[in-house]
Amino acid sequence: MQQDLSVQLSRLQNDLLELSHIGYDPESKGVFRLGFNEADMEGRRWLIKKFEDEGFSAHMDQAGNIIGKMNAGQTGPVVAMGSHIDSVPAGGMFDGTLGVLAGLECMRVIRDAGLECEYPLEVYAFAEEEGRFGGMMGVQAIVGELNPHWLENAHDATHVFLKDEMQRAGLEAFRALDARVDPKHFHAFLELHIEQGPVLERIKKPIGVVEAISGVYKWLVRLIGEANHAGTAPMDMRSDAFMGLADFAHEIPRIIDEDGSDKSRLTVGRVELKPGYAHTVPGEAEFTLVGRDTDPQVMRNLADSCRRVLSAIARKHNLMFEFEQMSWLEPQAMSDKVIKSFCKQAEKMGLDYEVMPSGAGHDAQYMAKITPTGMIFVPSVAGISHSPDEWTHWQDVETGSNLLLQTALEYAKPKAGAKKKSAA
Amino acid sequence: MQQDLSVQLSRLQNDLLELSHIGYDPESKGVFRLGFNEADMEGRRWLIKKFEDEGFSAHMDQAGNIIGKMNAGQTGPVVAMGSHIDSVPAGGMFDGTLGVLAGLECMRVIRDAGLECEYPLEVYAFAEEEGRFGGMMGVQAIVGELNPHWLENAHDATHVFLKDEMQRAGLEAFRALDARVDPKHFHAFLELHIEQGPVLERIKKPIGVVEAISGVYKWLVRLIGEANHAGTAPMDMRSDAFMGLADFAHEIPRIIDEDGSDKSRLTVGRVELKPGYAHTVPGEAEFTLVGRDTDPQVMRNLADSCRRVLSAIARKHNLMFEFEQMSWLEPQAMSDKVIKSFCKQAEKMGLDYEVMPSGAGHDAQYMAKITPTGMIFVPSVAGISHSPDEWTHWQDVETGSNLLLQTALEYAKPKAGAKKKSAA
Repeated sequence: MQQDLSVQLSRLQNDLLELSHIGYDPESKGVFRLGFNEADMEGRRWLIKKFEDEGFSAHMDQAGNIIGKMNAGQTGPVVAMGSHIDSVPAGGMFDGTLGVLAGLECMRVIRDAGLECEYPLEVYAFAEEEGRFGGMMGVQAIVGELNPHWLENAHDATHVFLKDEMQRAGLEAFRALDARVDPKHFHAFLELHIEQGPVLERIKKPIGVVEAISGVYKWLVRLIGEANHAGTAPMDMRSDAFMGLADFAHEIPRIIDEDGSDKSRLTVGRVELKPGYAHTVPGEAEFTLVGRDTDPQVMRNLADSCRRVLSAIARKHNLMFEFEQMSWLEPQAMSDKVIKSFCKQAEKMGLDYEVMPSGAGHDAQYMAKITPTGMIFVPSVAGISHSPDEWTHWQDVETGSNLLLQTALEYAKPKAGAKKKSAA
Repeated sequence: MQQDLSVQLSRLQNDLLELSHIGYDPESKGVFRLGFNEADMEGRRWLIKKFEDEGFSAHMDQAGNIIGKMNAGQTGPVVAMGSHIDSVPAGGMFDGTLGVLAGLECMRVIRDAGLECEYPLEVYAFAEEEGRFGGMMGVQAIVGELNPHWLENAHDATHVFLKDEMQRAGLEAFRALDARVDPKHFHAFLELHIEQGPVLERIKKPIGVVEAISGVYKWLVRLIGEANHAGTAPMDMRSDAFMGLADFAHEIPRIIDEDGSDKSRLTVGRVELKPGYAHTVPGEAEFTLVGRDTDPQVMRNLADSCRRVLSAIARKHNLMFEFEQMSWLEPQAMSDKVIKSFCKQAEKMGLDYEVMPSGAGHDAQYMAKITPTGMIFVPSVAGISHSPDEWTHWQDVETGSNLLLQTALEYAKPKAGAKKKSAA
């Protein structure tokens, strides 16, 4: 019966476009709704009004999260949808916003259909997902993973403190601890997001069902040899730090073949050579190594393998090898049950989908710690995101929103025959 | 007969130490006699006085070269010795100065012995060898390889123009063209220099006889791929510019094995990744590649091989590949005759020597274009040069200077029995 229901793309388009003008920078053509900045707060106020104009209730919690509710009076654990509406500097118009505004549209469709559900619906726009202050502050508040020390000290790259930026936004940082929600409050959490990668476009599938969100570790590695005159030092008398790095990077595919999986990623993104002169053998190579996998054991195996290979190569090139582990975040599997629901609904709708990892972090990775959580992707054109060039075809926006709608309905359980016209 | 002659180390030590105080910087403990700066000119005036105090004649030519003469009235082509006395910033006390002051000491020994020679002796302290203004200006003037355009435009890294710096030193840049010397003026040129590399120390030999000065090419290479999110871009969908560079660098030993020689050097000294973030696949890698060999054909083969390997790797990694040849300087062989003389004299003296390439550039590479030229090295402690830590053991200084003396005498041809006491 609910198979007849579908989102109205035009309403969702309007919402996405309206929000994309808040924090828009004409010069870069990108969006600047950085966590708790003025544009971000304007977006949050706009969102509350949006819910209210549609007859839903909405409020901002102590951590800045916006929570829109349908049938607020109804008891029982809620089926929650959502994502975030803050952006990176010069961000795009779909990253996060799609999951929030598609959730709102799902509520509208259910309201218009006059469906009464066993489980009430909520839509979350989590605060500060993009990590301006080094975390996913809003959703961490809800799942109870904040602490006062972090709230006191967190600052952005320009040394603006989280607590100061929150105060300017009318919020008190320490009160974010009060935003924790009892896990019993939730029945499930569903997040729709753009893929931000090239996979779906390349394999020509409109839907990705996320099986797990990759864990990630970041190392700062230093190989230290000896700077020498590039003319007078014979090749076999050098301790060339860059040649050590090159040999290591060359082994990355083998490391993944032997100790990783098809979900593994190893990236050397930043390299600094010292002294860094054309005519001098590099005496030092400092570089970042970022590793990812969806399986905690595979991630550990990857890290062990990197350490062994670096150590062996350092010995071979007569280099010293040291590294600092800047961060280590465990992978987070999505709920098998919710994955199955997404797949089943996609099949009912005749959609081709790919069960795939998420290489980027998302609010869902925290919600998964307290409630059955699932996540779906729609394709990003050319895999581009975190850029004004970010785009997702409207048809894919519609498809993903409809899959979200059907899966939300599966969890919300509409009462048979019970149709009425009022909503909030 | 001349085998009895030998340098007086104490005189040479005094000269080296005296000169090392001119332009000395107490903070870095290095010497700052940059081409044509005040300290450099003070050094040149000191050197003229040094020659004159010993009873030799000396003058500064239009390019700033100092030329000391023994028996100035004597006709016939001259046996020239020398090197340079300018330094790099924070340089050491032997680089260049040894070849000049050992030449002066050779003159003193021959004078003291009362030897009359068939060929007169000259000692050259060439101007601006270290390339502050991008060349080897003094010796280029003498061999006739300067041009007015270059003199007009040459400037240092801080955009001080050569012509302005020369003017402050009391010299007119364009008149440097007048410093050219007719090749017929020379019978031979002999340069003693510190090795500035680790080879002699490692193989425990006190003398290196240079067979050729390496040619050198410098490329600025760019590999251009696509910057992507390091989490969302699977390994097999990346165009990772750094992985292209790493694969190329990994092939360097093979390139040298297949197309180079044991005198080949290939160095990646400077690397810049864009955007250069830990969590972003590098979209661009710009790096320098400096290649060296003593054989012109081998140098061309090396360059061809680098181009082929870079091109193949670019295709494999789906990268664009472009490079700019910043410079190409041909290798310069030393005179076979002079090499043999150095070797013969070393054998007579019972010295263990190594015939070896020079990976660094020297004045001798220009003098070799107009007269039979040879060069010898003495060991650098730990291979260090261009640094206040530059050191050569006094014993090696003495050994090298004595080999220079004996070889100079071989070329100057002392007249049998003709001993007299006056010199200039």
